[in-house]
Amino acid sequence: MLDYKLLAALNAVIEHGGFERGAASLGLSQSAVSQRIKLLESRLGTPVLVRMSPPQATAAGQRLLNHVQQVRLLERDLRTDLPAMDSRSSMSRLRVALNADSLATWWAQAISGWCSAEQVLLDMQVEDQDVGLRRMRNGEVAACVCATEQPVAGARSLLLGHMPYLAVASREFIARHFPDGVSIAQLPQVPAIVFGPDDQLQHRFLRQLGVAGEFEYHLCPSSEGFVRLLTAGIGWGMVPALQVATELRSGVLCELVPGQAQQVALYWHYWRNGGQLLEGLTRELAARVPRLLG
Amino acid sequence: MLDYKLLAALNAVIEHGGFERGAASLGLSQSAVSQRIKLLESRLGTPVLVRMSPPQATAAGQRLLNHVQQVRLLERDLRTDLPAMDSRSSMSRLRVALNADSLATWWAQAISGWCSAEQVLLDMQVEDQDVGLRRMRNGEVAACVCATEQPVAGARSLLLGHMPYLAVASREFIARHFPDGVSIAQLPQVPAIVFGPDDQLQHRFLRQLGVAGEFEYHLCPSSEGFVRLLTAGIGWGMVPALQVATELRSGVLCELVPGQAQQVALYWHYWRNGGQLLEGLTRELAARVPRLLG
Repeated sequence: MLDYKLLAALNAVIEHGGFERGAASLGLSQSAVSQRIKLLESRLGTPVLVRMSPPQATAAGQRLLNHVQQVRLLERDLRTDLPAMDSRSSMSRLRVALNADSLATWWAQAISGWCSAEQVLLDMQVEDQDVGLRRMRNGEVAACVCATEQPVAGARSLLLGHMPYLAVASREFIARHFPDGVSIAQLPQVPAIVFGPDDQLQHRFLRQLGVAGEFEYHLCPSSEGFVRLLTAGIGWGMVPALQVATELRSGVLCELVPGQAQQVALYWHYWRNGGQLLEGLTRELAARVPRLLG
Repeated sequence: MLDYKLLAALNAVIEHGGFERGAASLGLSQSAVSQRIKLLESRLGTPVLVRMSPPQATAAGQRLLNHVQQVRLLERDLRTDLPAMDSRSSMSRLRVALNADSLATWWAQAISGWCSAEQVLLDMQVEDQDVGLRRMRNGEVAACVCATEQPVAGARSLLLGHMPYLAVASREFIARHFPDGVSIAQLPQVPAIVFGPDDQLQHRFLRQLGVAGEFEYHLCPSSEGFVRLLTAGIGWGMVPALQVATELRSGVLCELVPGQAQQVALYWHYWRNGGQLLEGLTRELAARVPRLLG
């Protein structure tokens, strides 16, 4: 069998973002951890991490981390069957990538009861969907929430539901730019807010209304920052209806063109051989998320 | 003088995250943009970007982008003095790195009036402070909000104020884990929530209370997700007092140990030669932020 002490050293350095903290988490000296990783590399004949700050796993290192996480999930199943096996911490770790808007809206309510009941600690990573799926393929995360249906090799995908996005702006913004009512044709001349270079929601919304071409925009890669900028009247943008329900009710934010919601599908991608823990989380999400998405 | 057509091509590809979109933003074909970048590279004798998805600027490319942004800021000053010079879009772009919690709390209120009045579009980037300052040094952003005072070469720093962080959890979480009242000594045994590997606030809070060693935690690199997880009762964590004022008032969230706020200093770093626009923003922040931070 593999020498798991070496793999655990690699895992700790990457998980804690450095040799010093990784070593501390294992109760080892930094030089002991460093030696284990060198030994691992000499056995493999290839580097497992790039010595930068924070250290990055190489392709070979990622493959090993993938393996470590799968083994841990299987060990957890084992401990459930043979509770006497391990008297140490009974908390399991699960690494999951998800889109920022899910984390900012329904995610916490969907998983909190399950995490407490199952004693699971989550490593959540915010990634746009291409990166999230690549991380699944590399084995850096065991599961991923994104808008793409096609699973990567070794994984399954499950439709959780659709998240409606609305085009909104502050009442004050609309009054300032459109004193005579919102003019679709003029919309590209007022500033929008866009989440990042890959966020095409605003473009799709304008195309759906028959407006083509470029428009001016702020870039804000933060879900809460996005809503704060909308509320402060700096631009218009597409946000999950879930996230601005209060602001719409109070009239702080208004829909630009009612009845033009964009539906974004959400899929749960998970390793096929992720053990009972991942299967349990999948069942929990399948049961809870459709209701949370309304 | 330099051939700015070539630099503009590089800037568009990086800003829009790809050759196709970069070319579209300039109204050019992809092959025209590609040729311009090749010409730039052959003149310099070094690559300016790495052809990955999305394309990344090399060190030389970043230096050029830095220059482009500085020239644009200076051009803006010129256009203010000679308004007839340019009849095209009068919106300027400014790229700024800031920590997630600032973007999730006071930032929008501090800058929205100024952005609208000055017709500025912001490219905001969420970065922890080491990365933010490195991006300033590389010239990828013109300014940065972070907790470090020491400015990078060519820049100045300005203390904006202090942001108090409180250790909080949901009322239900406290009742479940501490039915007889919060026990500091037991705190490491209940799950915490930590923003990322560099987030030492929870560690500092425990040390301040005389509790040493490791503790279990969820990782959640999203400000809004963090508050949602706290509210859903999955763990305890340190959050800006500003961000949970409503939840504390309503009693959904409670302070674990009242009177133990952690103060985090916030500095504004900005290029010394950033033109009048950046100076104006600096004056605006100096005037508004201390009041917003309370």
